[in-house]
Order: sequence, then structure tokens, then C-alpha cells
Amino acid sequence: MSNNIQIDNSGRLRHFLTIEGLNRALLTEILDTAESFAAVGEQTVKKVPLLRGKTIVNLFFEPSTRTRTTFELAAKRLSADVLNINVSTSSATKGETLLDTLRNLEAMHCDMFIVRHSESGAAHFIASHVAPHVSVINAGDGRHAHPTQAMLDMFTLRRHKPDFGRLCVAIVGDIMHSRVARAQIHALTTLGVAEVRVIAPKTLLPAQIESLGVHVYHDLRAGLRGVDVIMTLRLQHERMLGAMLPSEREYFHLYGLTEEKLAYAKPDVIVMHPGPINRGVEIDSRVADGGHSVILQQVTHGIALRMAIMTLAMRSGKEE
Amino acid sequence: MSNNIQIDNSGRLRHFLTIEGLNRALLTEILDTAESFAAVGEQTVKKVPLLRGKTIVNLFFEPSTRTRTTFELAAKRLSADVLNINVSTSSATKGETLLDTLRNLEAMHCDMFIVRHSESGAAHFIASHVAPHVSVINAGDGRHAHPTQAMLDMFTLRRHKPDFGRLCVAIVGDIMHSRVARAQIHALTTLGVAEVRVIAPKTLLPAQIESLGVHVYHDLRAGLRGVDVIMTLRLQHERMLGAMLPSEREYFHLYGLTEEKLAYAKPDVIVMHPGPINRGVEIDSRVADGGHSVILQQVTHGIALRMAIMTLAMRSGKEE
Amino acid sequence: MSNNIQIDNSGRLRHFLTIEGLNRALLTEILDTAESFAAVGEQTVKKVPLLRGKTIVNLFFEPSTRTRTTFELAAKRLSADVLNINVSTSSATKGETLLDTLRNLEAMHCDMFIVRHSESGAAHFIASHVAPHVSVINAGDGRHAHPTQAMLDMFTLRRHKPDFGRLCVAIVGDIMHSRVARAQIHALTTLGVAEVRVIAPKTLLPAQIESLGVHVYHDLRAGLRGVDVIMTLRLQHERMLGAMLPSEREYFHLYGLTEEKLAYAKPDVIVMHPGPINRGVEIDSRVADGGHSVILQQVTHGIALRMAIMTLAMRSGKEE
Repeated sequence: MSNNIQIDNSGRLRHFLTIEGLNRALLTEILDTAESFAAVGEQTVKKVPLLRGKTIVNLFFEPSTRTRTTFELAAKRLSADVLNINVSTSSATKGETLLDTLRNLEAMHCDMFIVRHSESGAAHFIASHVAPHVSVINAGDGRHAHPTQAMLDMFTLRRHKPDFGRLCVAIVGDIMHSRVARAQIHALTTLGVAEVRVIAPKTLLPAQIESLGVHVYHDLRAGLRGVDVIMTLRLQHERMLGAMLPSEREYFHLYGLTEEKLAYAKPDVIVMHPGPINRGVEIDSRVADGGHSVILQQVTHGIALRMAIMTLAMRSGKEE
Repeated sequence: MSNNIQIDNSGRLRHFLTIEGLNRALLTEILDTAESFAAVGEQTVKKVPLLRGKTIVNLFFEPSTRTRTTFELAAKRLSADVLNINVSTSSATKGETLLDTLRNLEAMHCDMFIVRHSESGAAHFIASHVAPHVSVINAGDGRHAHPTQAMLDMFTLRRHKPDFGRLCVAIVGDIMHSRVARAQIHALTTLGVAEVRVIAPKTLLPAQIESLGVHVYHDLRAGLRGVDVIMTLRLQHERMLGAMLPSEREYFHLYGLTEEKLAYAKPDVIVMHPGPINRGVEIDSRVADGGHSVILQQVTHGIALRMAIMTLAMRSGKEE
Repeated sequence: MSNNIQIDNSGRLRHFLTIEGLNRALLTEILDTAESFAAVGEQTVKKVPLLRGKTIVNLFFEPSTRTRTTFELAAKRLSADVLNINVSTSSATKGETLLDTLRNLEAMHCDMFIVRHSESGAAHFIASHVAPHVSVINAGDGRHAHPTQAMLDMFTLRRHKPDFGRLCVAIVGDIMHSRVARAQIHALTTLGVAEVRVIAPKTLLPAQIESLGVHVYHDLRAGLRGVDVIMTLRLQHERMLGAMLPSEREYFHLYGLTEEKLAYAKPDVIVMHPGPINRGVEIDSRVADGGHSVILQQVTHGIALRMAIMTLAMRSGKEE
């Protein structure tokens, strides 16, 4: 699948589907735009009229209250009208095809689809079939991509460690099944982070992960030595039963981030997690709630970042 | 049941329950008002402040995401506040009567109920029991009526073929079980369309349908000969199993609209469908997506039409 | 559990969890503020911009369309943005802890949580763990408290019978399991109502109810003699099966409010009910719909009262 689809003829963001294929200038523009929205959440009136009169549809093919909430909030703070559509319980049951559902929403002059789907490539498929006036934002498709999460990580990272050229970042955990890890790696390398490490058991690492330009570690302590940033990943309980891991307890013993292991990193290391946290599985509560954690800042920045993506993608559609 | 209930003492629309009993002047006023809203969907800011501070309740006794979406969108573009209430999962479970639910919503100063119900006459029943300040819009009740759908069809028709006195319109398909067909027939004849035909197998035609002033055809090709407009109807899979039709394949063979059959109509014929489409059952994809189809325009016009109905009914209540 | 938590350092309402611990001045301020909002529902544009740009979250751990609707409506009429989150179907399923859910919503700069929970003390627990900028409103927790309902009763009462020092009020029905009764008793005594009676079978009265300063009656006619106000309670069908009551018919015979029994009260008695009504169980339809009933006024006042609570609690958070 080509990724050019997410860039319009003027080189601007039209859809936001994956970090792959976006250059450093564009990622930086996203971060800069998010910076301008970060203050909105602090205002007494947390609202700007930028997308007033626009219709944004949360088109969710699998339920995710958490993700839906962040996009709904971002859209409302931009003064857009929001429609929540849970496709699994709606037209799908009447036998309407996906494309007909899209055509109908477009015909109602909806401007943007926030797409959540359990299958990889779904957002891409939808973006390649929408009308010229519609933008598509990927809010997570299967194991493939979750690009707003990766970018809010970059935003949080830049606020704490702006000198990317000197950074060493470690991504720890289930790289194989994570929607987030792959996007993080692309974003980090595109933005010029000096060194990216992945730390995981062999069973949770995709083949040829080194080809993405990362260093692989199987030992947590060794991998954390001297890093500036630790990005922990959520362990998907459901997928782990027996097949790939002996037990959660064993996983925590080997790969759970504790204060003891944290000490191998630089003294001013920051710790991230995309949420929701499995306390005592991939991260110890003392680390999650401790002084190095920026996990809740990620949540805060997630709103600003999504406001930025919505505004940029909407602008593209309008001026074409 | 009297239909006078939907007209106030000044002859204006107070509720919108059924096309029956509305005269040509009133239907024309609805279409003219919708015309004034058609441009809103094309604006950069798709919003007008007409119903700001009004509360519109989607009171759905059966789920219909599709229908709910169109009314919610129309209400939001008029700047109204919208409450979505799925009655089957709410107070009904606490044993509250329907009338008590209505009394409560009225007491909260709600201004308008958009009613969807599986039983014929439900919207009528509700309209006959609401407080003077509340208007009721029928969003589909059983097989009975779906008047906003019929009127958006009229709106789409008028935009393409404004000279109703010269038109020949064919309605094709499951006339018997359609919420839409009966309303379409009333609207077409009231607006002075020269000839209305219905084309269907005998098992899908109600008795004495001729009394509504239509010509009956059982052969699709014969019925389409020389028509200006074809209104196809959705085949309700669920209801068809064995009892009334041999099979979907057989139905498509006899009554499915294909390019070959379309050729019997006038060269500039337009094709409508209320959606969602059963591709390959009542209509072939080449026709649904072809140059004669105005199906997606119907969806677009549906928003303007519902904005018109809401504005007109709200005005009535206010000035009484 | 201390109730001081709901008062800030300046003695103002910060959370609204229970009537207990609130003094007469504060309850009166709530009623006075609600008075200023009562007119909003009567306006053509039922909206004030007081909470524009604020984010109010309906955080419902058990479903209640009725309660959710009243808070959503109040929030929208104050121009706030509203998020509806049904926790049972969201992050809880991903194993996130309640506190993590709160931390996340706070990090998104949400300003207020409207909490509905099946367990007593849940709202209190949440309020004792939220960030300084967040206010918590109890929308019903187990059998414990439902303070907005009690205060809208007081508001309705004051509009009809402002001279509290001379009033005799009877609360009739399932005192034991009611979320409302306990809060009503506290509010009535705090506001200086001269006499409060509770009328119920022994099986539906908590032990030592007299310690709250009420007079206990087991005979409805005796208890109603000379009262100014009758507050009927909803009988929770589900809880009554066999164990505590012989039958609904028997209950109605003994404790159902009929016109005959109403005659024992003062001629200008008013009758209240928190809704939804079980007609023919705790109240006869002729009374519920009769001239003494102010039940629908309670619903109307409920919106104004909730607007008042939201505005007061939001103000506290802001100026601290």
C-alpha cells in the first residue's frame, strides 16, 4: 500500500494513517501545531472556534471508549460537531457495504472520519476510497498503526528532551503485537533520534526488526543502560495466554520496569506508557507514579496533538 | 386517526407525522424551506443559529443509527442541543409508562421529539398526547409512515424535474411492507405528478392500492416504459424468507433494476432509492452507481429537508 | 467518612456528595442559585454561557438514562461540553483501575465528574481522590445518597410553602432502600422544617431512624393527619419479592397514596415523588395526576437545581 495517499499535492497532511512516509518537516509541523494547542487545555474557556461548523465522525468498528473520548474531546475543543457511530451495531447489520456507509456520510457533508478498526489497513482502505473533501484519521487499526499515539509520545519527548540528536530511547515490551511500537520507531528515527533500542523476549519481537534501524536487546538491564527515555508497552493479556509467555509474573520479573531496573538508565530518564497500564505486569506502580514518569502528561498532550492533526488535515481538504 | 393533529390553528405544520392530510401548499412550503437550507451543507461553516437553545430529543424505541444520524446532524447544524434516548434500554426497564416518559421530557422543557418506533401509529399516538410546546417528528413507525424520507425524495425530484404536471413516476418493489412507498404516493399525487405507477409482484402489493390513484404493473419492463423517474424500494430480507418470494435471485431476475431494464425508461430518467441498498437484489450496482442514479443526492438533501421540517415545526409551537 | 471534603477552605461547595454536613446557609445558597436558573428553561433560547469551554463527564458505573439525561441537559444549557462515559463497558474491561481512569480524565483537563454508582460511598471515594481542579457531583450511589434529588425536592417545596418553620412533612414508603429518603430528612431538618414524619411498614424502616429527628408512623392515615407535604417514595420492585412485602397489591392497600387517604392531610397539601412512578403501587394515578401533585414541577426544577450545583461547584474549583 502506498502511503503517499496521506499527503496532498502541496505536500501537506491530508489523511493521518501512519508515520511511515511522513518526512521530518511534516512531523515537526505537527508537533509545532500541537504546541500552539497545548495552552488551550489550561485556559478557563477550553475552546477555540477553528473547526466550528465542521462535522467529525467517530467511525468505530471496534469499541474503544478511551480512544473515542480523546478524539471527541479534541473535536469539541475545536468547536466541531461530533457524531459517534459504532458501526458494528448499525448499518452493518442491515447488510450495507462499508463503501455505501462512507458514501452516505460523505453525502451528509461530513468532513472527517476518525477510524478505529480491528483489522490492519482498514483506515488506509477507507482513506483510499473517500471523497476529496473528507480526511481520515487512523485511531488504531489492528496491530498496524496508531499514529496519534506515537506523535503524542514525540510531543511529550520533545518537551522534556528537545535535543533529539543526542538521545537514546528504549522501547520495552511486546513489540510484536503493539499498535504503537512500530509507529514510535518510525517517528523516532525520522525525527533524528540518535539511537533507538527495542527490548523484548524473542517471542515478542517481529523478524528483521533490525532493518528499521534499531538495536535489539533481550536483557532489560543491559538495554536500559544509559538511555534517556524508556517507552514501555502494554502487554495484551488476551494474546499472551501460555503460547508466548510463561506467566505475567515471569514477564514482570524479566521485563517489568521497576525502580531497581530504572537505575540502569540515565539519572534524568523519563518513562512513558501509552495506557492503560497493567500495574505489576509491564511496569511497577512505584515507577508508573514516580518522579520519572510522564505518563499522565502524555494523556494531556494527546488532546493537543489530536487537535493539531484535525486542524492540519481539515486545512488540507479545504484549500485544495 | 385524524391527521389534523399535525396542523395548528393557523394552518401551519405543528407535528410531522404523515404526508396524508397535508395539502400542496404546505408540502411546497416544506420544499421551499429545504431549498434555503441546501446551501448550508456547502458552506465552510455548516451551521446556522436558528434553533440555538432548543432541545431536540431523538426518542428511539427501536435502534436505527442511520436515521438517528441524519436527524442529529440536522439538529446540530441548526445549533440545537440534541439528546439521544434509546427508550428500549432506559426508563422502560424501570416500568415507567410511555406517557410518564413524555411528561418528564416535557417538564425538562424539551421542544421536539424525533420518534422512531416499530409499531404503526406510535408517532401519532405520542403527538396526540404531548404538551402544547412540543412538536413531534415521525422518523419511521412500523410499516406506516416515514414522511421525511418521502419529502426528501420530492425535494430531489423537484431539483431534477420541476415540472411535476408532466411527470410519470414508477415506484418499484415491496410496496406492501415499505414505510416509504405509501408516503411517496401521497406526496406525488398531492404535488400534482401526472402519473404514478407501482410495479411489484402481487404478493408485495397491498389490496386496493389502485384507490390511491396509481397504476399497477406486475411486469417491470412494461411498467418502466417511458417513465421519468424510478423510485426503487428496499427489499426487507428478513420478511421475505420463503413466504412471499421464491428467492433473492429470482426477485432480482424479475424486479431488480438493471441497465437492460433501465433502457425502457426515458433517456433522462433518474433513479432513486431510500437506502440502505441491497446491491444485486432490488438494484444492480451499475445502476445504483451509474449516471442516472441520484441516490447520494437524496442523502444530501435529507439533511436540508430535516432542517426544514424542524424549523417549520418549531416555529409553529413558538408563535401559537 | 468525613463530609468536610465537599466544602473548600472558603466554606463553599467544592463537591456535592451528600446533604449531611452542609449547613443551612449553604443549602439556601443552592436554592437561591437554582431560583436564578429557573427562568432559563422558560426562555426562547434556553442557554446561558456560564460554563462554556468546561468539560463535564457523566461517569456512569451503572446505567441510568433518566438521571444521565437531566445532568446532560443541565450541562448543555450552561454551554458546557459533555462526555458520556459508561464505565462498565469501557476501560474497566481492559483492567484499568478506577484511579487510573480518574487520572486520565483529569489529565485531559476535564472539570467535573457526575458520578453514578451502584455502591454506597463511591462518589465520596472518587471525590477524595480527584485533582484539585475537579469537582464531583453524586448522581446516586447505592442506597446511600442522591443529593440533587433531595435538593430539587426542597426547591419545589420552597416555591409552594416557603415558611419552613411551620411545615409538617411526611415521607412515605420504602425508607430503608431509598437513595432519596435519608437525604430528604437531612435537608428538611437542616432547613428548619418544623416536623418530619416517616410512614412505612417496619420491614422498610432502618433501625434507629428516630435518631435523625423524625417521627415514625406505621399507619398511613394516622401519619398523614394534618401534613402540609407528602413525599412518596418509589417501591423498588426488584428488592421486594416476597422477602419484605406480601405483594404489591397489599402494599398499595396499606401504603399506596389514594384520594381517600390524601383527605387526611391539610386541604392545600402538595404531593411529591422522585420518579419514575409505579402507578397503583405507591401512588394512585388520580393522585399522581391530580391537583395536589407537583411531581412534574419537580422534574422541571431538577434541571435548574442541577445547573445551580454545577455552577457553584465549578466556581469553587476555579477561584481556589
